[in-house]
Amino acid sequence: MRLLLVGFGTVGQGLAELLLEKKDVLARDYGLAPLVVGIADNLKGNAYDPGGINLRRALDAVAGGKSLNDLGGSRFEGDALAMINQAAADVMMEATYTDIRTAEPASSHVRAALERGMHVVTTNKGPLALHYRELKDRADQKGRRFLFEGTVMSGTPLLNLMRSTLAGSRIEEVKGILNGTTNYILTQMEGGLGYPEALAQAQELGYAEAVPDADVLGWDALAKVTILANTVFGAEMKPFDNPCQGITEISADNIAAAKAAGKRYKLIGRVWREGDAVRASVAPQQMDLTHPLAGVMGATNAVTITTDNLGDVTIVGPGAGRRATGYSMLIDLIHIGGLS
Amino acid sequence: MRLLLVGFGTVGQGLAELLLEKKDVLARDYGLAPLVVGIADNLKGNAYDPGGINLRRALDAVAGGKSLNDLGGSRFEGDALAMINQAAADVMMEATYTDIRTAEPASSHVRAALERGMHVVTTNKGPLALHYRELKDRADQKGRRFLFEGTVMSGTPLLNLMRSTLAGSRIEEVKGILNGTTNYILTQMEGGLGYPEALAQAQELGYAEAVPDADVLGWDALAKVTILANTVFGAEMKPFDNPCQGITEISADNIAAAKAAGKRYKLIGRVWREGDAVRASVAPQQMDLTHPLAGVMGATNAVTITTDNLGDVTIVGPGAGRRATGYSMLIDLIHIGGLS
Repeated sequence: MRLLLVGFGTVGQGLAELLLEKKDVLARDYGLAPLVVGIADNLKGNAYDPGGINLRRALDAVAGGKSLNDLGGSRFEGDALAMINQAAADVMMEATYTDIRTAEPASSHVRAALERGMHVVTTNKGPLALHYRELKDRADQKGRRFLFEGTVMSGTPLLNLMRSTLAGSRIEEVKGILNGTTNYILTQMEGGLGYPEALAQAQELGYAEAVPDADVLGWDALAKVTILANTVFGAEMKPFDNPCQGITEISADNIAAAKAAGKRYKLIGRVWREGDAVRASVAPQQMDLTHPLAGVMGATNAVTITTDNLGDVTIVGPGAGRRATGYSMLIDLIHIGGLS
Repeated sequence: MRLLLVGFGTVGQGLAELLLEKKDVLARDYGLAPLVVGIADNLKGNAYDPGGINLRRALDAVAGGKSLNDLGGSRFEGDALAMINQAAADVMMEATYTDIRTAEPASSHVRAALERGMHVVTTNKGPLALHYRELKDRADQKGRRFLFEGTVMSGTPLLNLMRSTLAGSRIEEVKGILNGTTNYILTQMEGGLGYPEALAQAQELGYAEAVPDADVLGWDALAKVTILANTVFGAEMKPFDNPCQGITEISADNIAAAKAAGKRYKLIGRVWREGDAVRASVAPQQMDLTHPLAGVMGATNAVTITTDNLGDVTIVGPGAGRRATGYSMLIDLIHIGGLS
């Protein structure tokens, strides 16, 4: 199984570490012997070697601030897309940064890889939120898998849970805490901080970016909600088709009033059916303290799935992180390899 | 796919209802057309028809207090074991009542079905807690599946989650609320009731039996913990190899003191690794209110799985119920049918 790693930032490196660490387990338990033949990163350089790239050396090079260009094998001229178009590989693992307005360059990477007959695994929310139906149809036509566990809740296996483990159930509603940064801020506000102080703390810890809009205005949660609507509910919507409200209007007084009433503010992304239509939204909600989502604190994510067979099932786990998101790609790879 | 339904109580009937209701979904989404050729229940009678039994009529017969013996087809003489030994079927679905001391008659049913080349699905805790290794080895020798999602957390897909959705992870620890009855009693005690009053209420609602020992002394949780140890951690233990303490010693004062300290009593079943050994226990614990298990109230179950890849992942869902446990058998059947 020859792999192409496109994007070698935190997630791609997390995957590379897991591939090294789990080599024996993959061979013994799943009969898999993945061989990384190419790594392409528009900042860190490119390496291609049909005989296999030494992942330890690639990780060391990047940790030492060196380019991947000099990693050995023949030097690869061209960008990631060129590598996808020329490489001989079975699976492309896409982990570039999400641009939620254009979904590029990730969507072009996915199209090219499918066109060349590769399976595709991605952690990039853009292609899923904007072009899912088109890409899934392409994958089906080519008889290839298109998996994306890491796009929602990182490695916490929400999507695999709904596809495989809840098979035979009708999913009526999915709602949850899909953005760890805002959940962290709300948790700190309940502890007594004002919004500006809580945001500053989240920025110091690296949870929030200097321009925190994508998190605090709800856009990140909105992209994930859209992915759930399109991939699980069969909708064909774009993120900004849906109402979206972030946490910037919530005051310390609001938090205190909710607390006094036995409730707690959470930024809730929600997808549900209304007759034949699928609806989606992101908005702060006052959750009753007895609801499983109310107890989810800090940067953790959680989703409650309502099905016809089981009523509510809630899954709580990490929503980000190098190892967790790297793992999301590993589990997709195992499913491509075939799992009984 | 010819099925034999052994045990036609609440769970078997729940499965029959789902097979009727989900007929189209099973055919369309999974290419499955299950045909029930036999139903055997030592109280409700037996029916066998190689051409297929009308499940609606079987459910109506039982609802009307009538025997299955007169359902049509040729009258079957003999008990469930005789039917397993004579029927032509592909999968045996075992849903008889659990006897945790002897694991019978369920273990004999499972052995006979595997011997005859059937796949086996069961919701019976006995064979798993007492004879897992032997039965799994038999299934492997015969090249047949042996699945038992419903034995822990009913239809909430804990076991499938660990086998399939968390594939490639090392599971370090599993701990949780595995018995809904005791969790209901503890919830009511936190609301102000004493233990005897809370127990009486649970009995009135049908959560607890007249002789409530299996629940309140922790034995039911212990059986489930043993199943997790044997099937997920590869241990070979019997339930009473492990320390087990129920909730009967917890007083209203204990509950109040925990509450004042920001904690909450939960009956926690736990399996963990200690070097190469696997340990298991059942005991009441004071959980910090910030832990996801602390917020799980009433008859709901919940388990926190600690893995090397993801840290803690918690799943919360129903732990009992006609439809939920019937569904556990349906999901196992779908996995036997093959799910990509």
